[in-house]
Amino acid sequence: MRLRKIKNATEKLALYPEYIVFNPQEYYQKWRGLFNNNNPVHLEIGMGKGQFIRESALLNPAVNYIGCEISESVTLKAARRIQESRAGGNVKIVNKAAFQLSEIFAPGEISRIYLNFSDPWPKSRHEKRRLTSDAYLDIYKNILEIYGIIELKTDNESFFEYSLIQLNNHGFTFLEVDLNLHEQNEKHIICTEYEDKFIAVGQNIYYIKVKNEYKK
Amino acid sequence: MRLRKIKNATEKLALYPEYIVFNPQEYYQKWRGLFNNNNPVHLEIGMGKGQFIRESALLNPAVNYIGCEISESVTLKAARRIQESRAGGNVKIVNKAAFQLSEIFAPGEISRIYLNFSDPWPKSRHEKRRLTSDAYLDIYKNILEIYGIIELKTDNESFFEYSLIQLNNHGFTFLEVDLNLHEQNEKHIICTEYEDKFIAVGQNIYYIKVKNEYKK
Repeated sequence: MRLRKIKNATEKLALYPEYIVFNPQEYYQKWRGLFNNNNPVHLEIGMGKGQFIRESALLNPAVNYIGCEISESVTLKAARRIQESRAGGNVKIVNKAAFQLSEIFAPGEISRIYLNFSDPWPKSRHEKRRLTSDAYLDIYKNILEIYGIIELKTDNESFFEYSLIQLNNHGFTFLEVDLNLHEQNEKHIICTEYEDKFIAVGQNIYYIKVKNEYKK
Repeated sequence: MRLRKIKNATEKLALYPEYIVFNPQEYYQKWRGLFNNNNPVHLEIGMGKGQFIRESALLNPAVNYIGCEISESVTLKAARRIQESRAGGNVKIVNKAAFQLSEIFAPGEISRIYLNFSDPWPKSRHEKRRLTSDAYLDIYKNILEIYGIIELKTDNESFFEYSLIQLNNHGFTFLEVDLNLHEQNEKHIICTEYEDKFIAVGQNIYYIKVKNEYKK
């Protein structure tokens, strides 16, 4: 997740108004309006350099994708690559922290959330920073539609164990669990940059897909 | 789980009346009476040759243990070893199939269930035989006390993935998940015969501990 800081990143972000939404709070409850269609909105939290969302958007033109990324430099990198890829109007980027998502999306506005290789924050005292800690799961439950989906991929065993317990304890219904996602090469899986590297060295990828049942 | 059939196993079982309960249905709602104390009752389903329950009983004299095993030959082997180990009066054996457990135990009579290295039955058409399939989980929910515990250990990745989904979908609350139980040697873990062999060859052991919340 480390990338050298880009000089004047803030100013450079302004060069990509087609992809970056600079005042995302203004689109609260209006995201489908921004995309100018009624397609479902999928959100990747911590999109990194954006390979996953870029390929997803190209493959699935009938889905609206939003990538959320806290780092300005990484967001800039993602914006450049999305422009180069000529991904269509179905990708937008939000350069915000995950804890702000409730101010950006209205309850039920998101159909699917992707958590790809989130920082595992292994130390107990950093638990609250993990993207599957209590406060974050409450945010996801709020912005997800009923029966909305969360898909999580990670290479980190402890973070996966933690996330299984958290997702269960917060009332999400498990749909799929895979302790070795790339074992079988039958289905096409859209990978992140990190995932490609992990596969290359034979590292296990853990995967879970859950449904939001809206029971508290 | 394969053991050569022992000749006249039925007759030989009669030699262990101290451990084997021949008509377990008669103790429905009366198990604590049989043990002659008020200690919690823990049940291992598919105890095999009984190493786990034998060591557990020796280590925890304030817990009553019942081992359930469908095979007569395996039950006989377990009974012999329990006798040799001089385990106390806190072990009983039931030579019955798991689907009969509701006739043997009253609702809430069991405090904890152990599923150790259950047959994974990998083929879809055998799903109903897996000890974490729907009908079995309904039985466990019934005989377990509220906040009762299930602990499951397996070396089988697919069976573990399946069991995670099943336990979640049946409303059990996850307390612990470990994708590599013997990674850290900090805590003493009572092992089954199979587990000892798996550890020797470096095979991953998967573990989950859940709580019965009694919500349907």
